[in-house]
Amino acid sequence: MRLVVIGGVAAGMSAAARARRLDRSLDITVVEKSAQVAWGACGLPYFLGGRLAAPSELVQYSPEYFRRERSIDVRTGAQAAAIEHGRRQVALASGHRLAYDRLVIATGARPDLAGIAGADEPHVFTLATIDDACRLKTFLRERRPARAAIVGAGYLGLELAEVLRAQGAATTIYEARREVLGHRDPALTDLVAQHLARFRIELRLGERITRIEPALGDLVVLACGFRPNVELAAEAGIELGLTGAIKVSERMETNLGGVFAAGDCAEGQHLVSGKPVYRPLGTTANKMGRVAGANAAGRRERFPGVVGTTIARVCGLGVAVTGLSECQARADGFDAVSARVEALEKPRYFFGTPTTVELVAERRGGRLIGGAVLGETAAAGRINVIAAAVTARMRLDDFEQLDLAYAPPYATVWDPLLIAAQQLRKLL
Amino acid sequence: MRLVVIGGVAAGMSAAARARRLDRSLDITVVEKSAQVAWGACGLPYFLGGRLAAPSELVQYSPEYFRRERSIDVRTGAQAAAIEHGRRQVALASGHRLAYDRLVIATGARPDLAGIAGADEPHVFTLATIDDACRLKTFLRERRPARAAIVGAGYLGLELAEVLRAQGAATTIYEARREVLGHRDPALTDLVAQHLARFRIELRLGERITRIEPALGDLVVLACGFRPNVELAAEAGIELGLTGAIKVSERMETNLGGVFAAGDCAEGQHLVSGKPVYRPLGTTANKMGRVAGANAAGRRERFPGVVGTTIARVCGLGVAVTGLSECQARADGFDAVSARVEALEKPRYFFGTPTTVELVAERRGGRLIGGAVLGETAAAGRINVIAAAVTARMRLDDFEQLDLAYAPPYATVWDPLLIAAQQLRKLL
Repeated sequence: MRLVVIGGVAAGMSAAARARRLDRSLDITVVEKSAQVAWGACGLPYFLGGRLAAPSELVQYSPEYFRRERSIDVRTGAQAAAIEHGRRQVALASGHRLAYDRLVIATGARPDLAGIAGADEPHVFTLATIDDACRLKTFLRERRPARAAIVGAGYLGLELAEVLRAQGAATTIYEARREVLGHRDPALTDLVAQHLARFRIELRLGERITRIEPALGDLVVLACGFRPNVELAAEAGIELGLTGAIKVSERMETNLGGVFAAGDCAEGQHLVSGKPVYRPLGTTANKMGRVAGANAAGRRERFPGVVGTTIARVCGLGVAVTGLSECQARADGFDAVSARVEALEKPRYFFGTPTTVELVAERRGGRLIGGAVLGETAAAGRINVIAAAVTARMRLDDFEQLDLAYAPPYATVWDPLLIAAQQLRKLL
Repeated sequence: MRLVVIGGVAAGMSAAARARRLDRSLDITVVEKSAQVAWGACGLPYFLGGRLAAPSELVQYSPEYFRRERSIDVRTGAQAAAIEHGRRQVALASGHRLAYDRLVIATGARPDLAGIAGADEPHVFTLATIDDACRLKTFLRERRPARAAIVGAGYLGLELAEVLRAQGAATTIYEARREVLGHRDPALTDLVAQHLARFRIELRLGERITRIEPALGDLVVLACGFRPNVELAAEAGIELGLTGAIKVSERMETNLGGVFAAGDCAEGQHLVSGKPVYRPLGTTANKMGRVAGANAAGRRERFPGVVGTTIARVCGLGVAVTGLSECQARADGFDAVSARVEALEKPRYFFGTPTTVELVAERRGGRLIGGAVLGETAAAGRINVIAAAVTARMRLDDFEQLDLAYAPPYATVWDPLLIAAQQLRKLL
């Protein structure tokens, strides 16, 4: 049995490694167009910022490791040119053909240039690959830009703002919508804007950049999100979903028998709204890849979907969201209510800092459907509690009584999560 | 309508404050035998350690605050001598009587002296009140003990060990059972013992102290847990539960009509085992108090129970447990399996440190029933995710796919929680 995986970053290598672990006898080939596999793009802003000595720190395992230790035939610098599903073959740009019984498509995504004119000018960058990061790092060192513009206020835009500001550039973020982190939450967005302003980073909301004007600054980074690499799949007759990414079942199956898709090229399901969503993130890609690999190896595993958890740290503040905001929930047809509190996350004598917690619930029945956390510390832990509760379809009255850990170095006796739940329950 | 509350610490003041918020017309009296109300005993080790300038930092609100701002008649220095339920009266030691329509008993707990002979010697201390802490602090300053013994390896024993060691005393913890934090988990206990040993704190397990011998050292602190103050209730004909604490319904009702009990004098229900448990903790006391207060004011609220979440920090390590350990689960009749992993909680380039996560599940069906986390940072957030999942009766295959927050400053792309779930699922 031959498994071919197209793409060797997060989803692709997760799929290959999992399939190998479950079936020693599989013949597994991974085709990767770049020179590296199994690396983490999420660290790119921190490589730029100087926290990583070399981009090699982003690479988890080398192609040699997979070849030697996992008996996976990893072919780097190899570009898949076509999927010929009738013959069960992948045609490579080199002219070679790889036969498969099972195929995992993990072709990833590329930066969305959002139709911006001038995106190819030499002072305009994207940040999706190690090469991108090296080029931008060289530019920063050599040109020392005085004024930088970032287009997009997603996690990447926020992380980049901190990096550019720390290197001395007056930094402005332009966001076409009126929200950060792709989360429709005006109050959260205000809080983030205020925080950024304190560090002299300007967040300009509702400003759609359509062309690169000189006035934007001497450096522009486009961080407008990602577009799934679906051309190869679409040409092979693989169905795309409403989001434009490859449509997959819970088992990561496409509409073609034996062909799976996973990672940033595939769409997921939102566990609250039930709608297809496109959320290209490393964690999701890895999970999808593992499930695709297991099923390609004959198991029956499922990836139910996501609740849209996202976190970014910007200038010391953790900003985290999960599930639906109140606005998004209303747009999705929920009768939603929300409450927001600010409370110390630890006692003052442990230097506790104010933390904002927002919770969103259905008015009838009180099911928790989303939330947000802003705080200097422990934002990640708290958003994960909300994410778990949203996934478990927990009701607010149960959430309010959660037996959360308490000791002064870690929390206050009433955790901000529970205070928010108390406030929100009054609105049901 | 007259509400009387006996005890003005966590549960009592929570009950009184909640009842007031729900019913402006209630006549509310709180009887507290000490001079303070609404203070947090959990901070006592940190007062001892010097992190708090004065014990007053432990006090959230003064009696005057409740009298003036909440119209609650707080009587400090007032000891309840008897509950005369036939007449709906509380008799005070002063001879006064307070009539009630509703009564909340929040008499708290006292240190369990575990029948140790010599517990009244002048170098033997407990740590339950601000007075205890002041006396012990004076002893430490004046006597500078060279060798200290702590009896009990619960959260208080562990926290105290750090404080005494930091003040220069060679410190030994004696624990009658073979476990820390009251969690039957030999592997966790080993890890904690190794950590303590690194800081030259000796943990002697299975050593029951029956009398205070001079060889124990020049300071002994008894931290053998707490006993509920139930005498007043029992004499009034209020039923006690199997744990020896006051038996209450989910609504915090005792067997006497209109009489509620809450906090460290009351027992709770374990949400996993379904058994009555006695877990005197500030968080639980506050939640119970709120529910008792609401119901005393005519609402119908419930406190379903606890999953036994406990956390303590000792010498920089967070030790946190929730739900049932594998041993405890077996003792409670579960066919339980567990897995333990050690993994970085953040990337190396964010100075991630190894974190241990243990998960326990039912072999059939894979329901998550407990877990433990040990780590230098973010232990609290991770144990809370497990606590939420255990409360929600989440299955391991859903837990494994949780959409947890990921960004390099906060986590690795595979959170240790998810790696542990993957390992455990192999055992189902």
